[in-house]
Amino acid sequence: MNNFIFENATKTFFGEGCVKEYLACLAGHYGENVLLAYGGGSIRKNGIYDQVMESLTKAGKKVTEFSGIMSNPTYEKVLEGARLAKENKVDLILGVGGGSVMDCCKAVSMAAVYDGDVWEDFWARPGIVEFEPLPLGVIVTAAGTGSEMNGGAVITNKKLKIKTGRDYPGCNPKFALMDPVYTYSVPKKQMVSGGFDTLSHIMEIYFSKPDEENVSDDISEALMCGVIRDLRSAIQNPQDYTARSNLMWAATMAENRIIKLGKQTDFECHQMEHQLGAYVDCNHGEGLAVLHPVYYRHIYREGLSKFRRFAVNVWKIPAKGKREEELALAGVEALADFIREIGLPTTLRELGINERVDLKAIADSCNLLPGSYKRMTHEEILEIFQECY
Amino acid sequence: MNNFIFENATKTFFGEGCVKEYLACLAGHYGENVLLAYGGGSIRKNGIYDQVMESLTKAGKKVTEFSGIMSNPTYEKVLEGARLAKENKVDLILGVGGGSVMDCCKAVSMAAVYDGDVWEDFWARPGIVEFEPLPLGVIVTAAGTGSEMNGGAVITNKKLKIKTGRDYPGCNPKFALMDPVYTYSVPKKQMVSGGFDTLSHIMEIYFSKPDEENVSDDISEALMCGVIRDLRSAIQNPQDYTARSNLMWAATMAENRIIKLGKQTDFECHQMEHQLGAYVDCNHGEGLAVLHPVYYRHIYREGLSKFRRFAVNVWKIPAKGKREEELALAGVEALADFIREIGLPTTLRELGINERVDLKAIADSCNLLPGSYKRMTHEEILEIFQECY
Repeated sequence: MNNFIFENATKTFFGEGCVKEYLACLAGHYGENVLLAYGGGSIRKNGIYDQVMESLTKAGKKVTEFSGIMSNPTYEKVLEGARLAKENKVDLILGVGGGSVMDCCKAVSMAAVYDGDVWEDFWARPGIVEFEPLPLGVIVTAAGTGSEMNGGAVITNKKLKIKTGRDYPGCNPKFALMDPVYTYSVPKKQMVSGGFDTLSHIMEIYFSKPDEENVSDDISEALMCGVIRDLRSAIQNPQDYTARSNLMWAATMAENRIIKLGKQTDFECHQMEHQLGAYVDCNHGEGLAVLHPVYYRHIYREGLSKFRRFAVNVWKIPAKGKREEELALAGVEALADFIREIGLPTTLRELGINERVDLKAIADSCNLLPGSYKRMTHEEILEIFQECY
Repeated sequence: MNNFIFENATKTFFGEGCVKEYLACLAGHYGENVLLAYGGGSIRKNGIYDQVMESLTKAGKKVTEFSGIMSNPTYEKVLEGARLAKENKVDLILGVGGGSVMDCCKAVSMAAVYDGDVWEDFWARPGIVEFEPLPLGVIVTAAGTGSEMNGGAVITNKKLKIKTGRDYPGCNPKFALMDPVYTYSVPKKQMVSGGFDTLSHIMEIYFSKPDEENVSDDISEALMCGVIRDLRSAIQNPQDYTARSNLMWAATMAENRIIKLGKQTDFECHQMEHQLGAYVDCNHGEGLAVLHPVYYRHIYREGLSKFRRFAVNVWKIPAKGKREEELALAGVEALADFIREIGLPTTLRELGINERVDLKAIADSCNLLPGSYKRMTHEEILEIFQECY
């Protein structure tokens, strides 16, 4: 294990019925004014909104609504939330949704108490948060990003065409309520892309140095095998509680810092997908599904021993009689097969991306990151995008 | 995943050099008076004491020493520490050692600020801690118990012949410093018994309901495979940093609550070993090594599907051509073989326990716990002890 520091301040309440059981009590620890943040309004249809309001009413809260948070939440939306929080003297932000809602809320929790420009000072480049963001609690309604148990937030600046993520521990939710039944109503496409986002997070961490045996990689393999198993089960039966609850907790475990300990992680594939998203506003998990196999075909030779382990331990490909390179590539192809099996797109064309989109501009806008098995160039990123098309 | 609540307040600093790098700064957050707690004095020989004192001096601390904490720390020792802490108006307890030192310090952190009898109110039976224990920081010098990242403390009441553990989140260390190099000087016997204690913790959690696939069991399998691999490497080369650091972090992961989430865990084998220890003061890991295979031969039929997974996923025993029961038992025998391979004792006789010891009294003193695959009786526990002899 390489050196690390670990802490995680989020208190997590997991399981069927947890919102009804704990929300009123948890909200009671904060002042009267709650900013209730959510997305396009699906929670108004599936009953979650009513359950949440019942608990907040019970706790005697005054609720200000902040709705319409879009996937790939924008900096403009963050400023709208911050304005609402200031005007209504909000004591607690309560985000109800998936990764987009949670990420937006984290940025709002900073912008609501910060006088400067949070994009400029904390997202355009990493900053040091020397103030206490507004307290945030989250209720997770879609599994995937794992945003519920870290300080990470991916924000899109539409004007600059930059989508970028930062992790500020001060933005960790104070509490996270996770009821797997809440995810039953997530449409299949979104459930699968969320599950693939989880798998992608684990792979991005796993495929990085060091290559010596380490506890983080061991756990990552276990999580990957579980996500593959549980995605298959949840596709068969979307109301399979075992599968949905495992997917929900695996998403958290992938991003609560545990499997990053002692690892260099670059999230290079996420970096490429983020810029794709900034230009064409595609679904995050679907964009990752298109990019991953192509990206890995470009880098596996530089990380042979890890890709070999991936083939054997995750995809259970027999090593016998195979050269190392052949085995490593077989693991990447097993991943590509799985992506097809679960019905995710495999080309940018399938993603609905217009052929006139300027792939070169997108490739050139990607940051070149150290840490991965292979140092990329903008030319190679463009090649990857073109092969994805 | 079954329902759960998770939080863990300990901030962990891991890696070579971490004490020198962080201790002075961490101690600086507390008042002037530090209670420096340690065991038999090995830290005075291997240089750790000097490194710690250098940092505490740098931070301007006034140090009171509390030394001689024995393995299986006693309630009397806890009261001695509490008296020292009160007399010297201690602001921070700093425990330097393995599980015995850390556990003793947690009980001291409560007894130093509590007017009643902490044994009676918190160990004889579970209590509710409605006060703030003294702040505790730990520096781990031996891997195994995982006490560094939870509120658990096992204390022995010699008069009553009871050794029992409780986990009070308020006793979580505020910080834990873990330098794997500090464990290099741990003698082989102790390193192996500490490693086996870790494996035992994971098995105690794994072999409990539910049996449906769940993320905690997935991670447990990964951790068990890693501990087996790394113990083998560390026996070959005690200064193998990769192996020693993995063993150190795996010990923490086994007991930082992550793999317990959604699981019923009874720690029945620990319960039996604790009472053995209360009567004969044996080495904890060695006692567990003797008990585990015998105990599992008694219960595996009641937990066939999990014992089958254990055989296949942990010991890599081919399932083909084997009946489920045969496969399950093969996993238990693989564990017994491993115990022999790493040089741990396999009988109570080898543990040096006198044949006149009253095994019936020990068996009768064990609590009968629900939660395991099989509800034990005192008669069956006595049978297990007799078979162990």
